[in-house]
This record gives sequence, C-alpha cells and structure tokens, in this order.
Amino acid sequence: MSDFKLELARSAEAVEALLAEILTDTPDAVAADKRLWGAMRHSVMAGGKRLRPGLVMMSAELCGADRQGALRVGAAIELIHSYSLVHDDLPAMDDDDLRRGQPTVHIAYDEATAILAGDAMLTLAFEIVADPATHADGGVRAAIISALAQAAGANGMVGGQIRDLAAEAEPLSQAADILALQERKTGALIEFSCIAGPLLADAGVDQVQALKRFGHALGLIFQITDDLLDVEGSAAEMGKAVGKDADRGKGTLVGLMGLDGARAEARKLSQEASSALETFGEAANLLKTVTDFVLDRRN
Amino acid sequence: MSDFKLELARSAEAVEALLAEILTDTPDAVAADKRLWGAMRHSVMAGGKRLRPGLVMMSAELCGADRQGALRVGAAIELIHSYSLVHDDLPAMDDDDLRRGQPTVHIAYDEATAILAGDAMLTLAFEIVADPATHADGGVRAAIISALAQAAGANGMVGGQIRDLAAEAEPLSQAADILALQERKTGALIEFSCIAGPLLADAGVDQVQALKRFGHALGLIFQITDDLLDVEGSAAEMGKAVGKDADRGKGTLVGLMGLDGARAEARKLSQEASSALETFGEAANLLKTVTDFVLDRRN
Repeated sequence: MSDFKLELARSAEAVEALLAEILTDTPDAVAADKRLWGAMRHSVMAGGKRLRPGLVMMSAELCGADRQGALRVGAAIELIHSYSLVHDDLPAMDDDDLRRGQPTVHIAYDEATAILAGDAMLTLAFEIVADPATHADGGVRAAIISALAQAAGANGMVGGQIRDLAAEAEPLSQAADILALQERKTGALIEFSCIAGPLLADAGVDQVQALKRFGHALGLIFQITDDLLDVEGSAAEMGKAVGKDADRGKGTLVGLMGLDGARAEARKLSQEASSALETFGEAANLLKTVTDFVLDRRN
Repeated sequence: MSDFKLELARSAEAVEALLAEILTDTPDAVAADKRLWGAMRHSVMAGGKRLRPGLVMMSAELCGADRQGALRVGAAIELIHSYSLVHDDLPAMDDDDLRRGQPTVHIAYDEATAILAGDAMLTLAFEIVADPATHADGGVRAAIISALAQAAGANGMVGGQIRDLAAEAEPLSQAADILALQERKTGALIEFSCIAGPLLADAGVDQVQALKRFGHALGLIFQITDDLLDVEGSAAEMGKAVGKDADRGKGTLVGLMGLDGARAEARKLSQEASSALETFGEAANLLKTVTDFVLDRRN
C-alpha cells in the first residue's frame, strides 16, 4: 500500500469516528428523529474513500494547522458530499437505486426522508464548522464557511448539478462548457478541500493560491477518471450503475477527447498539480501522490 | 395601519431590495443557471409578510446593532424559510401545487429544479451571514451561523418537519408531543430571528435570554394562529389549500384544546411574550405589538 493510501486510511478512520459521534441520536429522540438520523447515518457511514476529508487533513498538516480542526472541517465536507449524493440519487434527479452496493436512502427509507436527511446534513456541516472547537478564531471559521458555501452552492456544486441535468436534454459539445460543468459539479468541493488546510492555518495568500491551483487540477483529474470508469468500469467494482452518462448522451470529457486523449489530459493535469505545490518543497511529496491515487482508482 | 405593520413594511422593502440584488444572475450564467436562479427568485420574491426578517431587524434595533448587518441576516433567514417551503411543497412531502396564490416551484419549473433551488437557497443563507459585510467580528458571524444552523437543522426545523410527516401516519395525542413538534417546525426559526438582534449587537446573555423567551412564546402563538386559520380561513385568503391538517388527522394544538382553548392559550402566551421584554422598558413597545399582529393575521 502506498504512503498516500496509508495516510488516507488513517484520516478516514479518524473522520469516521468523529462522524459516528456527531450522528448519534439525542437522548430525547422520538421515532421520527431516529428515522431522520438513521437515514443520515445510512448515507454517511456507508463507507467510501473519504478523499475530501483526507485532502483537508493533508493540506492542513502541510500548512501547519491543528489536526482537530481539520478533522471537523473534514467531517463537514464529507457531510456535504454525502448530502449531494442523497439528493442526486432521488427519482426526480438521477433516479439511482444503488450507491456503494447498498440501497440509496430513498429506497431504504422513502423520498421525503431522503430530502430531509440531505437538508439536515447540509445544515449540520455549517454547524460543525461554526463551532469554536473547529478553530479559536471566529474569523477563520467564518472564512471557511464562506469558501465552503461558495463551493457547495449555486455557483459551485449545485450549479454543476443543474447544468448536468440540462446536458441530458441538450448534450454539451464545447470543451469549455463541459469543463465549466465539471469544475462546478465535482471540482468545487475538491478544490475547497485543498484550500481548507491553509485557511485553517491562517496561511498567506501564496499558500492558498498554490493549493487552489493544485485542487483545481486534481478536481479535473478526478472527473476524467470518473468518466473513464463510467466507460470502462464494471458495475460490481463501482457499486452503482455504469455507462449511464454515455447512455444519456451527456457530453463528457472522454466523449470529447476520446479515451487516449482523456488519459493524456489527465497526465498533463497531474504535472500541473505537482508543479503547483513546488513552493512547499519536499513537504508536499505525500499530497502530490494523490494524483496517482485518483488516476489508478477502480471505483 | 399599526406602527408595527408600518415598521414591518419598511423592513420588508429593504430586505426585498437586498434579496433582489443577491438573487441576480451572474454575467457568465448559462441557460441552466438562469433556470436555477429563476426558481430561487420565484420562491423568494413571491411576496409574503417577511415576518422573520422584520423580527431580526427590530430585535437588532432594540439591542443597538447595526442595521446593515441585520438586513443581511434577515435576507438569510428569509432564504431558509423559503427553501423550507419549496421542499415541503414537493410531491414526496406535502404535495402542494399552490403557494401564495402562485404555482409552487416544482409546478412552475420541475421537481429536480425545486430540490436544487432549495439546496442552493439554504447554502446561500450561510454564505450571506459568513461574509464580513454582515459584521466586522468573525466570532459574531460564526455565532449567528451556529444558532441559525441549530434552528434550521435536524434538531430544529427539519426535525419538526420529519415529526410532522410521521404525525400524518400516527396522529399525536399528547400536548407535549404536539408542542415539541411545533417548537421545531415553526418555532425554531422565529426564535432565531428574535435572538439574531442581540447576537449581532454582541449583547449580554440577559438580553439574549429575554429575546429567546419572547421568540419562544411568539413561535407558539404563530403556530396556534396557523392552526386556527387552517380551520377557519378560506383558501382565497391563504393563497393555498386549507383544512389539510385536519383532513390528514394531524394532532394540532387547536384539535387538542378546541378553538376557544387555543385562543385563550394564545392570549396567555402573548402576555408571557410581553413580560419577557420588561427588561428593555419602553424601547420594546414596538416589538411587543408583534403578538397582536400575529394573532390578527388573516393569512
């Protein structure tokens, strides 16, 4: 196992322990509350690579930020990632029954519970970051909330999802439009995860900009790999339906550039990502290898 | 027109101007973005009394907080109130086609757009509060975000909504359970609106507690009036379907106490609300009259 995988597993374990603690029923919970929190746990505790919290924790360590604070921001970003999956899986959206090999929340529970569980997870993410336990300086907490909301909102992830739905009806043919969609839909949260570290460390604008460039390239690599897996992967490996994007005629980067072109683009982006971290010297070696991890992933 | 109505109209005008400015398409918006922001405007700009922003602004003035900051928190709370209506109206939830006499968002647009517009509105609310324009002190901004997230989340408004859905299948018969539901579903946001002022003013715990008690009583009065209107009101006045709660066999406070009992309880709560503000002396006279406004409302 690579050093990156080991470090990712270590941070995943820590963030899952915190999430399990946060997602516990309150003592006065009635049956309906237990249902809501159960749906949240069903979504959040179903495994996954915990890549985004890993990026938060590794970027935090790189910039010298406190580990406990990074863990909390990691839990918050995972809650937002999970809520987006719960809502995306709904019948009115992508209509998926399976996620990581398990029934999606609206199948295991019902649609109303899935909508509300997603709403509660999104809200909880901001509550976690706003808590003084995340950072002693309220200005730092507010700056992280601001960046997180921008990454998750109408000009970020949600904006990417509405463009994605529109692209089903009218497939995108321009590279710039497809890129803009992907930067929002998956790129924004990944980029946020990479700048959370310098924000927590109250680092200078140089470090924030360097990790922003790194996160931007990484987000695109992630999406290209996702598209490649959608074409090449098996449903068993992915734990969800594959080939759906192609079936729906969505304009993807792979569709635009071809398999080889997309792979070449991912390698180019991988070099861009590495060079963005030059300013950190050898300390960034571990984080740099995330690009190999993302390129090599099978699900 | 009462002084309270005048003041409410004045703050509504200001908050609507800010919301209109915030909910403007960005210059690079594509058709899908315009659809998303259009759905958000459809929901937020459809009128309404803007009671919650009014409470924020009046409690802010009472405690000596800056008006511009209060306006921003008012816009945020109105976005959260509006998102909750968009999601509550969905077919999987209350399945309502009309809201304030207009088609609901999933009717005017579609379900996917309604889900995403709600998600974007919730996220935008936190982005607005986190911005330094809301308050120079990041600690104050973070404290408001924390209170807002608690009021809106799984132990607040969303928790009330899941209890409400459960109560349709199994009506509540105990007053304590009905109260606990209403405190979450509508009470939490109203209570938040009343403590936003002292939080923005960085006021002492006494003022926060006083306005919290006031907001708690006001939230219950609001819900009792809502139940009374559901029994007595006409669909034309309400701009939405009425009698639905009774049809669905939900345990309401009016169902439990009867019409006269509920009216008497509302009057008792009105006195509680007034006495909570004693500590502010005559300065609180205007805010106190909100209870009359809520008791007398026809929609």
